[in-house]
Amino acid sequence: MRVVKTIEGIREALSSAQRPVGFIPTMGSLHAGHISLIERARRECATVVVSVFVNPLQFGPTEDFDHYPRDLDTDARKSEEAGTDFLFAPATKELYPAPPRTRVTVSGLTDRLCGASRPGHFDGVATVVNKLLHIVSPDRVYFGLKDAQQLAVIQRMTEDLNLPVRVVPCPTLRESDGLAMSSRNVYLSPEEREQATVLNRALSLATEQVKTGRISRADEAAQLIRETIRTAPQAEIDYVEVLSYPDLERVHEIRDQQVIAATAVRFGNTRLIDNVIWPGKEDS
Amino acid sequence: MRVVKTIEGIREALSSAQRPVGFIPTMGSLHAGHISLIERARRECATVVVSVFVNPLQFGPTEDFDHYPRDLDTDARKSEEAGTDFLFAPATKELYPAPPRTRVTVSGLTDRLCGASRPGHFDGVATVVNKLLHIVSPDRVYFGLKDAQQLAVIQRMTEDLNLPVRVVPCPTLRESDGLAMSSRNVYLSPEEREQATVLNRALSLATEQVKTGRISRADEAAQLIRETIRTAPQAEIDYVEVLSYPDLERVHEIRDQQVIAATAVRFGNTRLIDNVIWPGKEDS
Repeated sequence: MRVVKTIEGIREALSSAQRPVGFIPTMGSLHAGHISLIERARRECATVVVSVFVNPLQFGPTEDFDHYPRDLDTDARKSEEAGTDFLFAPATKELYPAPPRTRVTVSGLTDRLCGASRPGHFDGVATVVNKLLHIVSPDRVYFGLKDAQQLAVIQRMTEDLNLPVRVVPCPTLRESDGLAMSSRNVYLSPEEREQATVLNRALSLATEQVKTGRISRADEAAQLIRETIRTAPQAEIDYVEVLSYPDLERVHEIRDQQVIAATAVRFGNTRLIDNVIWPGKEDS
Repeated sequence: MRVVKTIEGIREALSSAQRPVGFIPTMGSLHAGHISLIERARRECATVVVSVFVNPLQFGPTEDFDHYPRDLDTDARKSEEAGTDFLFAPATKELYPAPPRTRVTVSGLTDRLCGASRPGHFDGVATVVNKLLHIVSPDRVYFGLKDAQQLAVIQRMTEDLNLPVRVVPCPTLRESDGLAMSSRNVYLSPEEREQATVLNRALSLATEQVKTGRISRADEAAQLIRETIRTAPQAEIDYVEVLSYPDLERVHEIRDQQVIAATAVRFGNTRLIDNVIWPGKEDS
């Protein structure tokens, strides 16, 4: 595996790379979820590129940009073990040599769920992904379904802007007790860590009720999830929503279309997200 | 020359094309200015692609989208004569199958000059050029300096988003009496057509005064241009501005940096633009 720090360097390295090129953009702090994306790209592509870049554009002024965990040596070791050919790890100045004036925005999808409490976040994501896709020019780009709203935004952006890349959604990986893997899990105290399992339990319970038909309405499902999460004394709910997916519009009956049940919950200073997608009619 | 109407078709046609690929995006109604861009691409590139697409996203609700001149047969003939290999002429539905949610915006540069009276115009330009660059994947893209603000926006966008393309600025072509070539010149009545030469005369007069040192301040140059244009009785000035180029910031002394003297003037219902760029210190 080669570690490349410059735009020119990665372009040159990839100019003679075998196609298809698979790409996994990350903010580092690689966990088993990221590794599963790399391993999938390894199975499907001749060349695998991972980027590690903590993107300032997608952090709000009061968010954890400065304290976001960074450990390039560990990320490099894990990437290499998972089969990465090129690790692209540019400095902030390499991607933003001057304050950028250009933004890629996706309206509608970005003002709800995480977008409501993180204004500008998804513009920052869409913009940096646009840049990275121009730099790496991959055939396939891999994203985890844990960040389902991010995935919907990226899919919509690549379609609207005719980006010549296939977006590959990958399932959420979970710890043995069901907690969705996240780079932010390391922030949790032991007690918060234990209570955080309530997200997956709440979503699983609702899934069961929907499958058996005991719950059919979006608001009932959201209510059940909310009540279950509230059983964890330290959980502070940011949102629980059941919306169409990937359009993220209000729905009434769950079975009429594919929907997402999505939640964001704070434990102390740490904000965790999780979701489940229900396929609608195909499921019945 | 091949005329291609679909995204898939042009991608397939270009997948085996010889590099470098030169690209001239247009809204059709090709005049000698466009032809000069095509001929330059022909000299510099192995493959030349011209697009003809009247982009609804860059027209305001009261602007001339419906009446913008369209004549694909004539455009095809002229493109072929100038040496085009592929003419990409998609229908509106091909580029916008659904209302697009994604916009590419360039802040700062786009709220002044033409952007002040045409809100959203340059977002529409930046967005469609981003799409076309993703579809055609050219090595070089050619733009005329007549639309100097558009050129500045595109240059800034390609830099900020790391688009792997070289933007090639090309000089404005003029009629024998100095009027800058434009697809909108056909709207002018004979009397308006005669008076419209005042734009180039005003800019040339100011250029002379700047060169000889009789004018050194931006506001003096703008004033001279304004007064000269006002000698044409039907001219209604939208703006006359002398700004830094390509950053389009206010300047005091002309010689301190490269500046643009830019103007937009209405004759009846037709709005014409013209400009001249003064290179600053290199000129002295």
